[in-house]
Amino acid sequence: MTKRVFNFNPGPAALPLEVLEQAQAEMLDFKGTGMSVMEISHRSKEFESVIQTAEADLRELMGIPANYKVMFLQGGAHLQFSMIPMNLRAAGASADYIVTGTWSKTAVKEAKKLGATRVAANTEADGFKGLPASLDLDPKAAYLHFTSNETIHGVEFFKEPVPPAGVPLVCDSSSDFISHPIDVSKYALIYAGAQKNAGPSGVTIVIERDDMIERTPENLPVMLDYKIMATSGSLHNTPPCWSIYMVGLVLQWVKKMGGLTAIEKTNRTKAELIYNAIDNSGGFYRGHALPDARSIMNIPFRLPSEELEDAFVKEAKKNDLIGLKGHRSVGGMRASIYNAMTVEGAQALANFMAEFQKKNG
Amino acid sequence: MTKRVFNFNPGPAALPLEVLEQAQAEMLDFKGTGMSVMEISHRSKEFESVIQTAEADLRELMGIPANYKVMFLQGGAHLQFSMIPMNLRAAGASADYIVTGTWSKTAVKEAKKLGATRVAANTEADGFKGLPASLDLDPKAAYLHFTSNETIHGVEFFKEPVPPAGVPLVCDSSSDFISHPIDVSKYALIYAGAQKNAGPSGVTIVIERDDMIERTPENLPVMLDYKIMATSGSLHNTPPCWSIYMVGLVLQWVKKMGGLTAIEKTNRTKAELIYNAIDNSGGFYRGHALPDARSIMNIPFRLPSEELEDAFVKEAKKNDLIGLKGHRSVGGMRASIYNAMTVEGAQALANFMAEFQKKNG
Repeated sequence: MTKRVFNFNPGPAALPLEVLEQAQAEMLDFKGTGMSVMEISHRSKEFESVIQTAEADLRELMGIPANYKVMFLQGGAHLQFSMIPMNLRAAGASADYIVTGTWSKTAVKEAKKLGATRVAANTEADGFKGLPASLDLDPKAAYLHFTSNETIHGVEFFKEPVPPAGVPLVCDSSSDFISHPIDVSKYALIYAGAQKNAGPSGVTIVIERDDMIERTPENLPVMLDYKIMATSGSLHNTPPCWSIYMVGLVLQWVKKMGGLTAIEKTNRTKAELIYNAIDNSGGFYRGHALPDARSIMNIPFRLPSEELEDAFVKEAKKNDLIGLKGHRSVGGMRASIYNAMTVEGAQALANFMAEFQKKNG
Repeated sequence: MTKRVFNFNPGPAALPLEVLEQAQAEMLDFKGTGMSVMEISHRSKEFESVIQTAEADLRELMGIPANYKVMFLQGGAHLQFSMIPMNLRAAGASADYIVTGTWSKTAVKEAKKLGATRVAANTEADGFKGLPASLDLDPKAAYLHFTSNETIHGVEFFKEPVPPAGVPLVCDSSSDFISHPIDVSKYALIYAGAQKNAGPSGVTIVIERDDMIERTPENLPVMLDYKIMATSGSLHNTPPCWSIYMVGLVLQWVKKMGGLTAIEKTNRTKAELIYNAIDNSGGFYRGHALPDARSIMNIPFRLPSEELEDAFVKEAKKNDLIGLKGHRSVGGMRASIYNAMTVEGAQALANFMAEFQKKNG
């Protein structure tokens, strides 16, 4: 029998088993073509159906209004860190950034290379444990950028920050994308590397409002130009076909699971199991994030000593609980419980945490 | 039984059957991890082995000298059209381009957006049918760029153009990459979208000499910076893991087939079968490229009328010969016979061409 583990990797991360099984089943002959989906033209009617169905399913799941374009790009969130200022911040203008962890800090670093960048809030002095108490907003900012979930620090916004009137809101949603419903109409642009909730690595989803697309300056390199990518339906050049196909399968699975409201409910159940294990441990486990900023996707936590942390990772692995070592910048453990993690998996981790504490507490 | 066809698609293109079968077999459990290769961390020892083995196999197959770096990037050849001038052409400097088809023409268009770009030769007035008779070279050019195989026009260089002393040679090898041996030491930079000979779409291979990497200017966006990509082993951010894995499997298959000398021999056999069918047709089939520039990868050809061309595509499809419609800019047919196309497939096409002519000639 094929071995499968409980996969708590932060990304690339667990994919739904039935998605993998479908990809496996149609690997040699995609929909009767006699070819793999990797072997067909990106301009064939079969691939057009793949990318158009993926877009339609995403629009349905997220309730994306008609005046937004959906793009499937390459280069990860990292390339978006540069494309956003290139496309949305006119020469001489300044953009605002809210910094709540490693990823928003990196977004600032990249934006600064290309022009004026203001930090509207920064929680680094407090160890990136919470959400900012207040924002120092520029009413003339080209946009306000925030990171809805910080994968490393486990800090998540459940309510969007409110920009000044007329300032577009831009969101890096890489690690909480399609994990709960949002009101897309509040955003000017949302982007997400797929490799957490939406699929494998190699594709980045960008959702951009039409009036923002009109800001695209003339003469950008084509691969960095939202207007070209949006108007070509992400088919200006050969897209990452396999990754888009996999995203499509994942979106179908999310629909089958009941959509984003149902997915959020399950995600909260899973997160609660692990946060309860932390909160009920009498201080043996210590969560990194403050309670009101706790992510339902990534749960970083520490143990009383690094020796115990090493032992925890090793013991967990023996129990087929994989990918729990935290990021070096925070240390300790991190449980990433994206959409594809089952309640059974979260329960197995919570049980293991209790057992481990009993033995070592 | 799984249906498989003879796949003449220009890219994404045919993959070796045994590569697909291996990917299928280890889809749910990659090397005993209990996870798909899409679900493991790009920093895990398992994925490090994937990317390092792929690089080592490529170095062995191509004879890449030690003073070259190998990168696995995103964005296709299209993004390289911009990254090359950004990284290799200092402010104020000019670069030379040889234009022999749609792809080198597009490379020029992108390079011009970013700085001074000279055309050292252009065969467009002759319909992109041959190689340039002579080159007008700038001895101070930042580099000389050429496209070793034009996918649409079926024109291939089998001998590199010779740049002036000290001018680095840069090559877009997207559609003839690893199809025959080359002397890498003649090149400063070679790049190739994987989706012809080397794997699926979503990854671009860049081979760059160390002294070129030193030209990388300060403060480029990280995803456009060769130095960062090269020194991080393509792991600065999450790479396109699946596409790299597939490239690795294809490279192992190429080794098993005997390496690039053996692959070239087979490729020449396949090309000869189809060129013979053209040459022996008494003018019923007319090849686009001039005989001395004929690609062994892409063979565009016309029939006496568009009606016959339409009938050819339809009849061929009934015979499981797929992907033969030519690019709209050239019209007619195009047979792309990359490494994964078998001699049996090329023979089947040659036979079909003779049959079709007998019925319609």
